[in-house]
Amino acid sequence: MKEFNLGIIGLGNIGLEVYRNIKKNASDIKKKTGFKLNILKVSAKNIRKKREIKIPKKLIEKNISKIINDPKIDIIVELIGGSDGVAKKIIFDSIKKNKHVVTANKALIAKHGDALSILAEKYGVNLLFEAAVGGGIPIIRSMKQGLIANKLTHIYGILNGTTNFILTEMEKRNESFVNVLKDAQKLGYAESNPSSDVDGFDAADKISILSSIGFGTKIINKGFVIEGIRNIDLDDIRFAKSLNYTVKLLAIAERKGNKVKQRVHPCLIPDNLDVANIDNVINAIVVDGHPIGRTIYEGPGAGKGPTSSAVISDITSIMLGNDEYSFGLAPSAKKKLNLFNFDNHISKYYIRFLTKDVTGVLSKITSVLAKYKISVANLYQEPSKLGSANIMLVTHQTKELSIQKVMRKLLTQKKLFKKIVMIRVRDYKKL
Amino acid sequence: MKEFNLGIIGLGNIGLEVYRNIKKNASDIKKKTGFKLNILKVSAKNIRKKREIKIPKKLIEKNISKIINDPKIDIIVELIGGSDGVAKKIIFDSIKKNKHVVTANKALIAKHGDALSILAEKYGVNLLFEAAVGGGIPIIRSMKQGLIANKLTHIYGILNGTTNFILTEMEKRNESFVNVLKDAQKLGYAESNPSSDVDGFDAADKISILSSIGFGTKIINKGFVIEGIRNIDLDDIRFAKSLNYTVKLLAIAERKGNKVKQRVHPCLIPDNLDVANIDNVINAIVVDGHPIGRTIYEGPGAGKGPTSSAVISDITSIMLGNDEYSFGLAPSAKKKLNLFNFDNHISKYYIRFLTKDVTGVLSKITSVLAKYKISVANLYQEPSKLGSANIMLVTHQTKELSIQKVMRKLLTQKKLFKKIVMIRVRDYKKL
Repeated sequence: MKEFNLGIIGLGNIGLEVYRNIKKNASDIKKKTGFKLNILKVSAKNIRKKREIKIPKKLIEKNISKIINDPKIDIIVELIGGSDGVAKKIIFDSIKKNKHVVTANKALIAKHGDALSILAEKYGVNLLFEAAVGGGIPIIRSMKQGLIANKLTHIYGILNGTTNFILTEMEKRNESFVNVLKDAQKLGYAESNPSSDVDGFDAADKISILSSIGFGTKIINKGFVIEGIRNIDLDDIRFAKSLNYTVKLLAIAERKGNKVKQRVHPCLIPDNLDVANIDNVINAIVVDGHPIGRTIYEGPGAGKGPTSSAVISDITSIMLGNDEYSFGLAPSAKKKLNLFNFDNHISKYYIRFLTKDVTGVLSKITSVLAKYKISVANLYQEPSKLGSANIMLVTHQTKELSIQKVMRKLLTQKKLFKKIVMIRVRDYKKL
Repeated sequence: MKEFNLGIIGLGNIGLEVYRNIKKNASDIKKKTGFKLNILKVSAKNIRKKREIKIPKKLIEKNISKIINDPKIDIIVELIGGSDGVAKKIIFDSIKKNKHVVTANKALIAKHGDALSILAEKYGVNLLFEAAVGGGIPIIRSMKQGLIANKLTHIYGILNGTTNFILTEMEKRNESFVNVLKDAQKLGYAESNPSSDVDGFDAADKISILSSIGFGTKIINKGFVIEGIRNIDLDDIRFAKSLNYTVKLLAIAERKGNKVKQRVHPCLIPDNLDVANIDNVINAIVVDGHPIGRTIYEGPGAGKGPTSSAVISDITSIMLGNDEYSFGLAPSAKKKLNLFNFDNHISKYYIRFLTKDVTGVLSKITSVLAKYKISVANLYQEPSKLGSANIMLVTHQTKELSIQKVMRKLLTQKKLFKKIVMIRVRDYKKL
C-alpha cells in the first residue's frame, strides 16, 4: 500500500489542530483515500515548549530546510502565514523540490498565486489552499470542480468573520465599534493589530483568489476599492434598520464582459436578502453562473476546527491522485482581465452627516448634491448631542464618481461636519 | 494529449443539455482538465426525431449495447432513469466493461448503490452521481472531499424542489394543494404522476444516499418514516404562521451512536431558522460535523441547467484522474448501521382536527391525550364551514409512539372527524 508522508511547518493553533485531526482520523483517512498518511516531520522553533498535544520529540525538526529537503516527504503543509518572508521561501523551495504544497495563507496566495501555480505545473505538483478562503466551507473545491461546467458571473459574500462578528454584536448589543472590537480581541476573534480584518484587506485577498478561480483571470490583487468598517457607527446601523436594511461588509466580484468589477466595502442590504441574516463569525459565499444559476455556501469562516478541516481536505485530495490546477485551469490559459472602472459604478448611496452646527448645513448639503445632479430618495434629520445633528439620506441610483466628488467637496468642510459616512446600497438580487 | 470519449445514453431534457454544454464549453474543459473530451456516441430510440439541438447522425446509436461495448468509450453517462430495468442493466454492464459511469439516477443509486460501488471498485472504475442529490449543488463532492476530515452528526434539509415549490406557492397565493399542484404540473415542476415527489419518496432516496456518504454506512433505503405533503391544507400553513412557524418538507439523517435516525416528513420550523426561508424550487442541505461545525449548501434543486452542471462535474472529475470511491470510502469499510427506533423520537407535535360536529369533540380529544400523558402547550379552536370546527393544538415534548397511538385511536372516529393532520415540530437548532 502506498503511503504519503507529510511535513507540517508552523505549529501554532492551526498546525496543532491539523496534527491532532490527522492522528485522530488516521483510520478514516485510510478508508476514504485507500492510502496511509504519516506525519513525518513537524517544524517548531522550540522543541521543549509545552503544548496542548504532546508531539513525539523525534517528529520535531527545528531546521525547516531539512524538512523541505527530506526526500521521503511528499507533501508540505505551510501554516506560518505572511505574504512574504519565511512562508514564501518555504512554498517556492518546496515546489522546486517536487513536493506538493498545502497552505492556508491567503495573503501569500493573493500576492504570489500566479507565479506559484506556474511553478507547481512546471514541477508536476499540486498547490492547494482551500483553507485560505471561507474557513471550512469547501468553496474553492466547489468552484473548481462542482461548478466546472459553468460560466460564473457573480461571486460575492461575507468573507471576513471578524468584521461580521463586530457588526452583528454592535447591532445586537447596541455597543460601539471600539468596544465590540475590544471584546472580539479578548475572544480571539480579532488580532491585537486588527487592521487586516477591520480595514477589509483580508476580505480583499480572499475575493482576489475567488475571482481568479471563478473568472479564469490572473489574480487582481490591487487597484480596487477596499473599505473596512472602522467608520461605521451605531447610528448607521440604526438608520439602516429603520429603512429595513442591514449593514454588512461584502466582498464582491463580477464579470462584466472582459472586465472584472471587484471590491470590498460595507453595504446596506435589505433585511430579507440572501446574506443579510448571516451573523457572527459565519461566512457566506454566493455564486451565480450559467447554466447552474445561484448557489450559496455558508459556514464558519475561521477557527482551528474549520481551518484544519479544509487543510486536511487538500491533503487527501492529493492522496486521491486528483491532479488539479491550483486555480482550476492551466496557468497558461489564465487570461489577464482588467478592472472595471469603478467611477462608473451605479448604486444608491446612504450618506450620514454628523454636523457641528445645524444652521445652513442642510442647504449646503443639498446644493452640493444638486450641483452633481444627485437626487435624494430619503432624508432624515435628528438632533445629536451638543447642538449638532445627524442628517441621513439615501440617494436614487447615481454614479460612484459623482458621489466621490460630493464626498471630497464636503469632507473638506471641517467647520460644518464632524464626520461623514457613506455606505453603498445593494437592493437588487443581481449586483 | 490524452482524450476522453463519452457515450451518453438517454437523450431527454437532461441528456440534450449535457450534450449542449459539453460542446459549448469544450475549450474550457480542455483548459481546466488538460484533456480533450469527445462525445463519441449518443443513444436515442428515434434517430430522425426533431430536437432542439441538431446532433450529427453519425453520433446517434440506436443499439445501447453497442455503446457499452465500444472499446473506444471511457465514460458512460446514464440519463434514462428508473431504479431497475434498462438503466440498471446499462450501469452494471458498463462497469463490467471497465467503463466509468456517471448518472443522475437517485432511485437506482438508493437501491443498488452498495452493490454498484463494490463492482466499480472491482473493475477499477468510478461511479459518480453528483446530480442525484441537490441538482447543481455540489453536495456529494463537498461531503466526500471538502468535509473528508469530519465526523458528521446531522445531515438535513430541503431535498425536493417540487414540494418546496408547492408549499411556497400555497402560502404565497393562499391556494390549495390540489390547485398549486396543477400549476406545478403545467410549469414542468411536477410530473403527471406526482407521487414520487409529493409523497416524499424522491427526498427519501436522496437522504438515503447522503446518510450513506455522510455516516459511512451501507445504504438505508427502507424502514424509515416517509411522509409527503398531500395531507397539508392551507389551514395548517395559516395556523403555523400564527405561531411563527413555516411548514417545510424536510429530509433528515442523524447519527445517534451506532444508529441512524433517518426520515422524511413535513416539519413546522421557526420562521427564522436556517432553511425556513428557502423557497420555491431551491434546495438547501445543512451538514453538522466535527471539527468543522455547521455548513449549509443552497441552490436550484432540479432542472436541466443545474443537473447538467453536476453531470459534467462528475465527468471532469474522472478526467482529472480523481480516483474516488462512489460513497467516499472503500466499499468494504462501509459499516452496517441500523435505524434508530423512531417510536422513541421526542418532539413537539402540531395536530389539527377538522371536526364534523363540535359537541363533545374537544373533550374526546383531551381525554385521549390525557390517557397517553400528552400535555398540550397551545390550543385554538375556530369555526369552520357547516357547523364543523378546526381544533389546532401543539403538544409539549412527547414521544412519537404516544402520538401514533393517539392518531390511531382518533382516526377511527369517523363520526367525529373529517380529517386529522399531524406535523412534527422542529424548534431547536440541533435536531
